[in-house]
Amino acid sequence: MTLYIVRYSEIGLKGDKERKRMENILIKNINSYYRIKGWNADCRIMSGHILVEAENDDPLRYIMGIKSYSPAKRFRFETLDDLKEIAVALYNEKVKGKTFGVRCNRIGTHGFTSLDVEKGVGDALYGVSAGVNLKNPDVWIHLDIVGKDAFFYDTVISGPGGLPLGSEGRYLALVSGGIDSPVAAWTIMKRGSPCDILFCSLSYPVDLLPFVDVVSKLIERWAPYRKPKIYVADCRPLIRTMVVEGKTRYSNVTFKRVIYKLAESIVLKQGYNGIVTGESLGQVSSQTAENLRAIESGIDVPVLRPLIGMDKDEVVEMARNIGTFPTRNMGEFCSLFASHPIIRSRPEDIDEDMKHIDMNEIEGSVRIFDIDDLKGMINDDFELKGSVPSDAVIIDLRPKSMYQKDHVQNSVNMTIGQALQIDDRNKNYVIYCSMGLQSAYVASVLRNRGVNAYYTTYKGIKKRNSEKEADGTADIDEPAK
Amino acid sequence: MTLYIVRYSEIGLKGDKERKRMENILIKNINSYYRIKGWNADCRIMSGHILVEAENDDPLRYIMGIKSYSPAKRFRFETLDDLKEIAVALYNEKVKGKTFGVRCNRIGTHGFTSLDVEKGVGDALYGVSAGVNLKNPDVWIHLDIVGKDAFFYDTVISGPGGLPLGSEGRYLALVSGGIDSPVAAWTIMKRGSPCDILFCSLSYPVDLLPFVDVVSKLIERWAPYRKPKIYVADCRPLIRTMVVEGKTRYSNVTFKRVIYKLAESIVLKQGYNGIVTGESLGQVSSQTAENLRAIESGIDVPVLRPLIGMDKDEVVEMARNIGTFPTRNMGEFCSLFASHPIIRSRPEDIDEDMKHIDMNEIEGSVRIFDIDDLKGMINDDFELKGSVPSDAVIIDLRPKSMYQKDHVQNSVNMTIGQALQIDDRNKNYVIYCSMGLQSAYVASVLRNRGVNAYYTTYKGIKKRNSEKEADGTADIDEPAK
Repeated sequence: MTLYIVRYSEIGLKGDKERKRMENILIKNINSYYRIKGWNADCRIMSGHILVEAENDDPLRYIMGIKSYSPAKRFRFETLDDLKEIAVALYNEKVKGKTFGVRCNRIGTHGFTSLDVEKGVGDALYGVSAGVNLKNPDVWIHLDIVGKDAFFYDTVISGPGGLPLGSEGRYLALVSGGIDSPVAAWTIMKRGSPCDILFCSLSYPVDLLPFVDVVSKLIERWAPYRKPKIYVADCRPLIRTMVVEGKTRYSNVTFKRVIYKLAESIVLKQGYNGIVTGESLGQVSSQTAENLRAIESGIDVPVLRPLIGMDKDEVVEMARNIGTFPTRNMGEFCSLFASHPIIRSRPEDIDEDMKHIDMNEIEGSVRIFDIDDLKGMINDDFELKGSVPSDAVIIDLRPKSMYQKDHVQNSVNMTIGQALQIDDRNKNYVIYCSMGLQSAYVASVLRNRGVNAYYTTYKGIKKRNSEKEADGTADIDEPAK
Repeated sequence: MTLYIVRYSEIGLKGDKERKRMENILIKNINSYYRIKGWNADCRIMSGHILVEAENDDPLRYIMGIKSYSPAKRFRFETLDDLKEIAVALYNEKVKGKTFGVRCNRIGTHGFTSLDVEKGVGDALYGVSAGVNLKNPDVWIHLDIVGKDAFFYDTVISGPGGLPLGSEGRYLALVSGGIDSPVAAWTIMKRGSPCDILFCSLSYPVDLLPFVDVVSKLIERWAPYRKPKIYVADCRPLIRTMVVEGKTRYSNVTFKRVIYKLAESIVLKQGYNGIVTGESLGQVSSQTAENLRAIESGIDVPVLRPLIGMDKDEVVEMARNIGTFPTRNMGEFCSLFASHPIIRSRPEDIDEDMKHIDMNEIEGSVRIFDIDDLKGMINDDFELKGSVPSDAVIIDLRPKSMYQKDHVQNSVNMTIGQALQIDDRNKNYVIYCSMGLQSAYVASVLRNRGVNAYYTTYKGIKKRNSEKEADGTADIDEPAK
């Protein structure tokens, strides 16, 4: 067991009552995190210092509200001479022939100041050292004095900062399997607000894969002690209305309005304080200033967009740092509707489009899961894993112009509407498109009908075919049941 | 004149048409910035490279959309051997006895690859050097090849990133004289959206001082070529209703709703795409999840809060980096209403409070300025600058409990309401409170009436008094007219 001194930042700026409340939540969270991971830990508060005795420090890196922490050694002392003696015993060998510096923080009433301690310890170790250096020494000696206890430590390790998860009101975060939205949810969680999650599936259950990938990373590292509820909406009917039947004119924007509307209805029913999105101003066509306004029109709950002012490379860096960067990326949420993206729309344009959308159908499709449920569900995968079987019917869903330019040998070009008519249960179908979303959607519909359909991307099938030429194999891996 | 290669980041991810549009705005902005500062510059585009020939590089650090830039030397060449020869002439002395690395980017059709160039130049300089090091060499040799032009450079200097100012739709940013709101406006400007500014004055014209301080820093460095319009609302009537008459119950929250309502009316009339605020979740009482929801209820334009997920120390660091950190801070926007802050309110609570607010009066008070107008106006300052004159009537506006605990000798404790009655033009009045906002408000009202009133903080007057004891002076600096 090691002792860690844990520091918070903004909690310290709060009034007495609010600080006490936040400290208690933080301590509860620390204890829960260790308990869930099966590690022993004891967490107490002592005059504004949080002391954790634990077998490892992993959780302290990931608990919201922790500014920094240090492995420390604790000593009881009476006088300044005691402190010098302890310091010499601890550091005599370490500073031999090296430069060093001493930093002291003090809480309580003592017959000496922090500066006295720094000077005293500095003098006591000066002889064996290569001198004092207070800017960038070889060895830092830190000590925090609290009453009759002295805590010595060498290093300061960063936590995430922010406020304890659960100290602020709850939000509903819209999360896809992409890069941005998990970072947005994390950011709001870091400010203390638990986020439940809404996922709008366009090719259920295929697009659950990248979603579960990123969300499980988010939860397991950052919120194992406060696992979010996950709302999954089956939005496949939108593809029928918007892509197959082409009833909407501003589909890339209207799709977002549908999600906002759905989220608003859940927020109002379940008592959340608003919606969290991963939008970044001007990043893609649905995120221009005009489209953001058109999307939000008529939505009367706050929409928090913590990434709104960030560049893509800043968000990517955050995703890597917090560990939610997708390992499998099926393309962005709305790429399905973005073949002719509208860059500037007006609220009334979207209101008009919304007349064709059956919100009751979408709202009625919502099911609630926890992350473990979802992990169990996504084994039933019908992505093309091996190479293309020789008897398979290959269907190309891309626009005719792209098909004419280049396509897989023996493939047939179809629209989504045509492909959805397929009803032959005696054949294998391999369906591909550019992003893998449209093909996954069609394959999922056909599978429901008992048709043996697999989906892939154009890039994916080209790769399979070249492998086939190389090694002569021709098989499809049967998906696990 | 030096030649600079300028790089953008996200502009490069756009489709052809959008990229062209953004490049043109960026070039226009670069030319304008130099012209306004009176510096010569010539800016052109060349196969995805922006070339600026200018007498200095200051503007390139501050123009939104620039990812990085490098002072460069340009050479015409025909063959790989030409490149080697140029490299040797440029770098032979520089790499002598040092490790070096070569990095080449190439656009156009050539009989060699980038790797060939790196190897060729590396071989040519290897002999005189201490060897090649591609991780952390003493000298980096960068060269970008565009057709028959080669650009050599040693350093890469960062710009702000983002998108060119003016490439995205306009917003109205709520800006105070504090730390957060100018950073929020900057962040949205960095994403390409011009921000006009709304300032809600509570002690007009005194609180214009810190406001003009931060806003002029923001404009002069970051947007001299696109100066925002500044809307100033005289919100002093709110103090009468909310503080003196005490008609509202959730004043710290309701004050924010008033500002949002005012901003919404300007957004709708003037065609902005929404509001920008500096709110950060849970930072102060009006920024809890519940209060943010209550404030935004009934507001049907987007509210962008780019700092919503940031910690205070992150925002402070940004303010220092972008140069808007206040040199004079009068306390936060709403501290006037935060003596008994409400931490959690409901939308209907605020709706009820709003019945007592005369929005027409607030909306009718709005005047439009540019930053230069405002700078001219704020010379009329009646903050207490010297020590307290011996004949002055000293008024303490703090709550009675604070006054009883400790106060300035000979001071009289008054409520704001009582102080506003003062009408004696033959005396000097020095009025103090905790933050300097209430006293500034009262002093501004009394001055309008011809009363000779000065304002200060409790801390300020204590300091003046102790100085007075020390040097025996007793005078008030006459404010400049």
